[in-house]
Amino acid sequence: MAKRKKRNVIVGQSGGPTAAINSSLAGVYRTAKDRGYNTVYGMLHGIQGFLEGRFIDLSDHIKTGLDAELLKRTPSAYLGTCRYKLPDIYENKEMYEQIFETLDKLEIDCFIYIGGNDSMDTIKKLSDYGIVTGSEIRFVGCPKTIDNDLALTDHTPGYGSAAKYIGTSVKEIIRDGWSLETPTGQITIIEIMGRDAGWLTGSSALSKGEDCDGPDAIYLPEIDFDIDTFVEHCRDLLKKKSSIVITVSEGIHDANGTYISEMGNRIEYIDAFGHKQLTGTARYLCEIVSEKIGCKTRAIELSTLQRAASHCASRVDILEAYEVGGAAMMAADEGDSGKMVVINRLSDDPYQAGTEVKDVHKIANDERLVPRNWITKDGTYVTNRFITYVKPLIQGDVAPIVVDGIPRHLYVPGYQELL
Amino acid sequence: MAKRKKRNVIVGQSGGPTAAINSSLAGVYRTAKDRGYNTVYGMLHGIQGFLEGRFIDLSDHIKTGLDAELLKRTPSAYLGTCRYKLPDIYENKEMYEQIFETLDKLEIDCFIYIGGNDSMDTIKKLSDYGIVTGSEIRFVGCPKTIDNDLALTDHTPGYGSAAKYIGTSVKEIIRDGWSLETPTGQITIIEIMGRDAGWLTGSSALSKGEDCDGPDAIYLPEIDFDIDTFVEHCRDLLKKKSSIVITVSEGIHDANGTYISEMGNRIEYIDAFGHKQLTGTARYLCEIVSEKIGCKTRAIELSTLQRAASHCASRVDILEAYEVGGAAMMAADEGDSGKMVVINRLSDDPYQAGTEVKDVHKIANDERLVPRNWITKDGTYVTNRFITYVKPLIQGDVAPIVVDGIPRHLYVPGYQELL
Repeated sequence: MAKRKKRNVIVGQSGGPTAAINSSLAGVYRTAKDRGYNTVYGMLHGIQGFLEGRFIDLSDHIKTGLDAELLKRTPSAYLGTCRYKLPDIYENKEMYEQIFETLDKLEIDCFIYIGGNDSMDTIKKLSDYGIVTGSEIRFVGCPKTIDNDLALTDHTPGYGSAAKYIGTSVKEIIRDGWSLETPTGQITIIEIMGRDAGWLTGSSALSKGEDCDGPDAIYLPEIDFDIDTFVEHCRDLLKKKSSIVITVSEGIHDANGTYISEMGNRIEYIDAFGHKQLTGTARYLCEIVSEKIGCKTRAIELSTLQRAASHCASRVDILEAYEVGGAAMMAADEGDSGKMVVINRLSDDPYQAGTEVKDVHKIANDERLVPRNWITKDGTYVTNRFITYVKPLIQGDVAPIVVDGIPRHLYVPGYQELL
Repeated sequence: MAKRKKRNVIVGQSGGPTAAINSSLAGVYRTAKDRGYNTVYGMLHGIQGFLEGRFIDLSDHIKTGLDAELLKRTPSAYLGTCRYKLPDIYENKEMYEQIFETLDKLEIDCFIYIGGNDSMDTIKKLSDYGIVTGSEIRFVGCPKTIDNDLALTDHTPGYGSAAKYIGTSVKEIIRDGWSLETPTGQITIIEIMGRDAGWLTGSSALSKGEDCDGPDAIYLPEIDFDIDTFVEHCRDLLKKKSSIVITVSEGIHDANGTYISEMGNRIEYIDAFGHKQLTGTARYLCEIVSEKIGCKTRAIELSTLQRAASHCASRVDILEAYEVGGAAMMAADEGDSGKMVVINRLSDDPYQAGTEVKDVHKIANDERLVPRNWITKDGTYVTNRFITYVKPLIQGDVAPIVVDGIPRHLYVPGYQELL
């Protein structure tokens, strides 16, 4: 591309929100401004909102250094997010023409999309279309997902904060479980997000330490789940201790691929990518255990908070998210397109990591699962290798900016009406 | 009582655990030691464990200043708790004889019990028996309950931290709700603890501020709940916004006293005090709303974490809990018996409060509900008076002592086996 005046940037967020995704947004914004771009647009609700012509000028929202710091500490997706799958180019060429027309009208040089697997599919398709039509716009993906299931990157921003929240909360729940004696014993089943990958559920092992045994069992979706074996395991555990805590992925399923949650669920919700929304796994297992063993049970869903609890965010995660946002912007500025930023780990302890860019075609729609040998042979716990991997990602905190006892988030007048 | 050498103290914890109950334990211990008592025993699992002869010497657990600091930051009940109701004296005089025999054998001068309504019933009965039999042992209650429903005290330790956690978490959930657009709109129903009193659910209004609207409706158990009116309210709210968040107490019930949770629940658990364990209120309401309105719904139970999340504890609460523990010990040392420490608020802003002791007969088995005029006329929100009341109680934090990214709790070798 011939040297010419830098023009504008547009950035969007897509997929499930996290506690770190806005830190990446702050990183994109800062680097775009530092590198001399004029306007940094934010598309509202990702590519779906963009198709409806909805976007903002981020300068109206990030006016001061304090605003940027608040943005880093704001959970959810500041710009709004979407779960919108672009059609294949041959299916709807008009849609691509429309997108590029708007991009050209806005004088966009760089298009940054912060998201997970499905979002990288958007980057792939747009950059493919750009190559075919000779567009000079660069499309770069910035990884984000609490699920940590993106291919080629050591881990994804958002995961560390979710893991820290899960480790902290599970430890508190375990401690709570010690307090009350129940003659029958008590089994607490904690349901953690993760449809196919057990990264989040495995992070419940972080609660283990000199002052806590950690969960008594951890069931990941990587291993087929058998209810009878599970009940026997519960029975065995109850022989040793009166309060048992077990963590399970929402996505555990039997050998036929039937989700455990489906076995006890009445309502089903399927998103645009055809993913089933899962819930009720812990509840269903508690009902079974209570019936078969007769002990007291508690079902706890960590629910939305595992992706939204910025009050318990990891410093490593928030800073890496910022860095990765900046790296995505830098890559686009330097001419990369059809790429995603990845994190490379150089060492576990001391933790060292850097970023590089990789071809998005090798990432999109692929999933990285917990390696089989990071799970114990019997499939009911993670190994030390898993813990060595996740531990650096939860270090440190980002002190919330607290006003009147409650963490403050970024909000400008009229912001909510935009979404 | 004639002046004589100070001997020993015993302290117990009872009822639902909280994030602050161990800070009170630390306060009792420190004051007992400062006032020259010899051994400070801790009964394991309250009066129930004591009846089985289970107690420890707290000096084996709190050896250093750091141990005391860790104890203040440790959620749940360090000594274990119970939900054990002493029989009336006439029903089982032998049990009382047994208790006092053991107390005398241990050379106990002061008996401190940290707990809520039901626990104060224990202090009342023991001090009554002591008076009748001419015992010189002093029985003093130290208030504790996240439910904040004890009579005569401005508030109870444990409530502030739970309220801070609820305010913070509800704000994060609200923010999360803004991120995704759903064509049908989305209603999130958050279920919060509170059987009869709405103090905890009301505290969800703390999420309201310049950067957040707070929940769109708050339903407390003080007001009879009508499902049809609720559905109409949801319908109205959805006309104004696409993401609605509503908080409900687990104890909301219809005009006949039937709990909403019972309407959709299969399993029931009743504790020793005859209280129904409630759960599933949010889930049931979501099913109804989804069916009647056709919008997307999310049911979130804050569950155990609202009483265990010491990582989000309020500094005011933790320090007051410590102070109240010390005040209970001081009162017993100075000759009070059959009393409970209460907190008196002198002013809201600047917040000033002190302690005094009150007759436990006026407290036990009584419940303090949210005053009707602290709830809006239509019964779907709390008033500013409520917020002015709760705000001082959530101020400040107690920085967790973090090891390897996770808050550390107090644990001495073999501790878990004791419980």
